[in-house]
Parts: sequence; C-alpha cells; structure tokens
Amino acid sequence: MTGTVPVPPTMQAAYIDSVGSADDIHWGELPVPSVGPTDVLVRVGAVAVDPVDTFVRSGTYATPLPLPFVVGRDLVGEVVGAGPGAVGFTDGQRVWCNSLGHAGRQGACAQYATVAAERLYVAPDDIDGEHLVAAAHPAASAWLALFRHGRLRAGETVYIGGGAGNVGGAAVALAARAGARVVATARAEDAAAVRELGAAEVLDYRAADLGERLRRAAPDGYDVHLDTSGHGVLAESVELLAGGGRLVAMAGLGAGPSELPLGRLYTRDASIVGFAISNATTDDLARAAQGVVRLLRDTPWRPRIVGRLPLSRTAEAHRRLEAGEVRGRLILVV
Amino acid sequence: MTGTVPVPPTMQAAYIDSVGSADDIHWGELPVPSVGPTDVLVRVGAVAVDPVDTFVRSGTYATPLPLPFVVGRDLVGEVVGAGPGAVGFTDGQRVWCNSLGHAGRQGACAQYATVAAERLYVAPDDIDGEHLVAAAHPAASAWLALFRHGRLRAGETVYIGGGAGNVGGAAVALAARAGARVVATARAEDAAAVRELGAAEVLDYRAADLGERLRRAAPDGYDVHLDTSGHGVLAESVELLAGGGRLVAMAGLGAGPSELPLGRLYTRDASIVGFAISNATTDDLARAAQGVVRLLRDTPWRPRIVGRLPLSRTAEAHRRLEAGEVRGRLILVV
Repeated sequence: MTGTVPVPPTMQAAYIDSVGSADDIHWGELPVPSVGPTDVLVRVGAVAVDPVDTFVRSGTYATPLPLPFVVGRDLVGEVVGAGPGAVGFTDGQRVWCNSLGHAGRQGACAQYATVAAERLYVAPDDIDGEHLVAAAHPAASAWLALFRHGRLRAGETVYIGGGAGNVGGAAVALAARAGARVVATARAEDAAAVRELGAAEVLDYRAADLGERLRRAAPDGYDVHLDTSGHGVLAESVELLAGGGRLVAMAGLGAGPSELPLGRLYTRDASIVGFAISNATTDDLARAAQGVVRLLRDTPWRPRIVGRLPLSRTAEAHRRLEAGEVRGRLILVV
Repeated sequence: MTGTVPVPPTMQAAYIDSVGSADDIHWGELPVPSVGPTDVLVRVGAVAVDPVDTFVRSGTYATPLPLPFVVGRDLVGEVVGAGPGAVGFTDGQRVWCNSLGHAGRQGACAQYATVAAERLYVAPDDIDGEHLVAAAHPAASAWLALFRHGRLRAGETVYIGGGAGNVGGAAVALAARAGARVVATARAEDAAAVRELGAAEVLDYRAADLGERLRRAAPDGYDVHLDTSGHGVLAESVELLAGGGRLVAMAGLGAGPSELPLGRLYTRDASIVGFAISNATTDDLARAAQGVVRLLRDTPWRPRIVGRLPLSRTAEAHRRLEAGEVRGRLILVV
C-alpha cells in the first residue's frame, strides 16, 4: 500500500460473529483490513442503512459472510491508501461505494473499509456527500430497474408504483429525464411533489377505481411497470402491460406466490423481469453510479434523510428499520 | 406486375365470411388477389395446418381479418409474378412463407396467395419443400423462443419440456447445435430419438421424482427453460432456474392463472419472457427462417408429417386438429 496517511492497526466496527438479531451486532475493536494490490482503503465518513443490511445480518438473504462480519453496504469517505493497481485513486479523495457487506465482502459500518477499486467511485465536488450515500441504494436500484432490466427508452410509457418513496421518487425523476412518460401512484398529499419530479400523471393509490384510471392514463398500455412498493397485484399489473411490455419485479420478498395469467403475458410478448441489486455486476453498478450522480445534479430529486445516529449505534438503526419506523434514509456518522 | 406466367382471374380458396367453427370454412371461388409494388404472387403448392389457424378462424385469437378471409399461415409454392419492387424474386422460383393469415394479411389456403416480398423466402434446392412448410411454424417458434426471447448462448444449460414434439424436437436440435447443454423431457419410448437430436439427458416426464432428477441434471440451474407442452408447473420451473435464468412462456393459453413465487424470481435476477410467434417482427421471422433452413440442412431433425389432405378439405383438417387427433404436422396439398 502506498498511502501517506497514518492508519492505526485497529479500528472500531459494528460486526456480528454469526447471523442473528440486531442485538447480536457488537460495537468493538477489529484489525484495520488489509489492502490488496487493486484495493483502496477508505476512512469512512458516513453510512446509509439499507433494509437489505438487516436481511444479510439475519440470514434471510443468504450470502457468504467472513466472520467476524462488519455489516453495511453503502459508504462515503476519504481515501487513505491504495494498492499499486488501484488506478485513479489518491489520498484525500472523497469517494463512495454501494456494494460492500455481502458476497464475501466486508461491510461499511467501521472506521475503515477496504473497497475494490472497481467498486469505488470518486464523489464529484458539486455533490453533497450525505446526499450521495443516502441516494446510493435507492437511486442505483431505480436506475438498474428502469434501464438495465426494464430497458426503458425515450418515448415509452412507464408506470411507477410508490412514486413518493425513495426508490419510486428516484425512478420518476430518472424516467422523466430519460424522455419517458411517467404515470405514478402516491398518496394524494404527495401528488404535487411527485409531479415536480416529472410525472405526467399521479394517481391516488387508494382510489377504488385505480385500475380504470391507470388504463385511461395509458390506453396503449405500459411499456415498463415498476412497483417499488411490493403491494401491487401481479395479475392486474400484467393486464395493464403494452405489447412487449416489461414488468420489473423487485419487491415483495415476504409475500406468498402471486397469481400470474400466463396466457395474457405470452400472447402479448410481455415479460416479468426479476431484479435484486445484490446480483448486479460490477459494471452494472458502475453505470448506475453515473446515473445516481446525474440524478442528483440534473433533477430536483433528493433522498429523504429522516435521521442520523453515530456509527456506534448501528444495532439501534437495525432495530428501528425492522420495527418499520423508518420512512426514509437513516444515516450513521463516524 | 411483371409476371410472365398466365394467371386466371379467379381461384379456389378455403375462406370464411365471419369467425366461427370449422364448418364455416367454405371451399369456393374468389378473385386472385392483387399484387402491390413490393409483393409477390405465389402459386401455392402445399400448406401446413397450424393450431393457431384454428384460433384465428374461431376468433379465440383476435386479429384483424379482411372478409372474406382465406385461412392458413404457412405455404410453399412457386413465384408466378412480382411487383417491380419485389427485389430478388423471379418467376418459377420455389418460395415459402410462415406469416400469412393474420394481422390483416390474407391466408395461404388458396391456389394463389399474395405475399409481401420481405415475408417470403427462397427455398434452397437441397431442402425438401414439404419438410420446409411442415417445419416453418414449429421450427421458427423454437428458434425465436430459444435465441430471440431466451437469449440462449453456447455453454449454457437449457431445459426443453416435450422434446419429442415438433416444437420441442426442433428446439433440442437447435440448442444442441448452438453449443448449449440440453436436458429434455419425453416419454421413455421417445428418449433415444430425442438423444439423437442432441440432448445430453432425456428424462421421463412421468417420473414421480422428476423435479429431483431435473435438479441433479443441472445442479447450477437452467439458464433457459422452455416448456413446449404448456403442462409444466410454473412455480417448480422457476425454482429450477439459474441466476439470471429466462423462462420462455409460449404455451398454455387455455389454462387458468399460475402461481408465481415472485421473491424466488427476483432475488435471482430471473425472468419470465412471454412469446407468441404472431407478434414476431418481419425481421425476426426472416432471421428465424434462416435458422429453419440450417436446422433441416445441418441436423437430423425433421418435422413429423402425419397426414396429407387436398386443400379443398381444409375444414376437415381444422376439425381433426380441434378434436386433438393430430399428433404431428398435417399437410394440405393443392
């Protein structure tokens, strides 16, 4: 490692010794991780807590975990060292990452984290670091769902369920900016805000005649259907697809099997495309990261940050997420 | 039209005046159709009867039909005239087509048919014309399902349900030739024949432990799943998919809704891709036509022709298909 910044041998970290409950997260001392030839050592500034962090910690989402395992996926921080092959990184740069803490990689909730150079992105000077880390997961999810999996093109019509949520709002802004016509659902009190993000129509998701309104809003059907809430009814959603339409499935893990009208799907060349960001390739994530920066730079969308806690209280953050108390992004600061 | 072959003003044709039963098909005289600037007039030699012909005739598959409407999709015949812009066609050429009889286009069951030049393919001299017309629908369906919608690549593992059927057999031969590893199901008595088409493993579809055998045959899962029978259980099929796997849905129109485990689908980036050949673009069909020719030239697969009737008995052919009596391809000859 060629870093010039002094780094101590140990650090404080939020880690687990085995999968379990939020109470099993320890706050204690671990060695600062080693840095391979194409790795970067980052001094962590802030971490955003994702629901998927709790699935990894509990074992609900099965993925290889080296033990003791530091939890957390997304960070923003500062370069304090880099391997000789970590091209393009120098000490003091502000950087961010959204793919730690699963698939064998240690997590973000520590004073230091080692990140493979190809998974680390330089934070542009004009973008607020807390916005970036808070946006990382929902906005990259929205970008990949719309463009990588939904193959959304300019001129198409897209349905976005839950347009006032963090993923949904990012999707509305991204799709509108890409030249698509956006029809979104939201609570009536959020409709104006979702329209400001670029939605052509915002429908109250509680309306009794929602299906009929959605049909009227897109008489030729929806080219892409993205329900970020996981509460949509699959059969009704398939019914609303245009010929060749793509329904991107990305939420509703806990729900039971859905009824799928297969004949309706295939006679229209329509598809259901499953997507979980944990499967995204390194290249996919790097492309999505560019999309996240443009989203923050070029659209009015910002992540909704609802609270900040010190990193030492990671366990409490997990408990609050699992209790369903967190209606936005919770940030852990070092 | 620049044809040099004398063509009469009228022809015999199998047609309907409105959608209805097989008994509503008339055999009688209609004008020989006009030929536009980029059309070719074909003297029909033989027609293969497709199940979809009966869906169009009955109205089950709704599609624009000019009345009186000549039924039938696939033909092989001879060029007897061409518009000035029908480049590449000359009188006497043997030609074939697999996209008449729907979407506003008149059908194949007549002494003459007008075909848009871009939907008409020259039949190579080394390929039997009856094989070509009998292969047209099942083999083009298999090609589009595997490569256009399933995006099958060399080195991948594909499941083909119903490997002894016309679509299934074509799919086994096409996939094996493309360098994929094929696991197929068939009746025990058909297993050897399906192996000869290139399947690495053929499993008895009636085996009580079929699910377990399919799992053992592809421990990493199936990259493409193609059930040509429409009898597979969707939830079990999704369970067998590899990460990023594509289940191509193309059969089972009459069945009710299927149960879909959406969580299982999206956590593995898997997709369900609906496909009906009637939606294929002109370009898709032209690419598939090249695949059909190569299939007949380079593999041991041949369509199973189970009977021949004169074109005047088109109504009887529809009745036999609808009675479920036809276990292969039925050919109408002029």
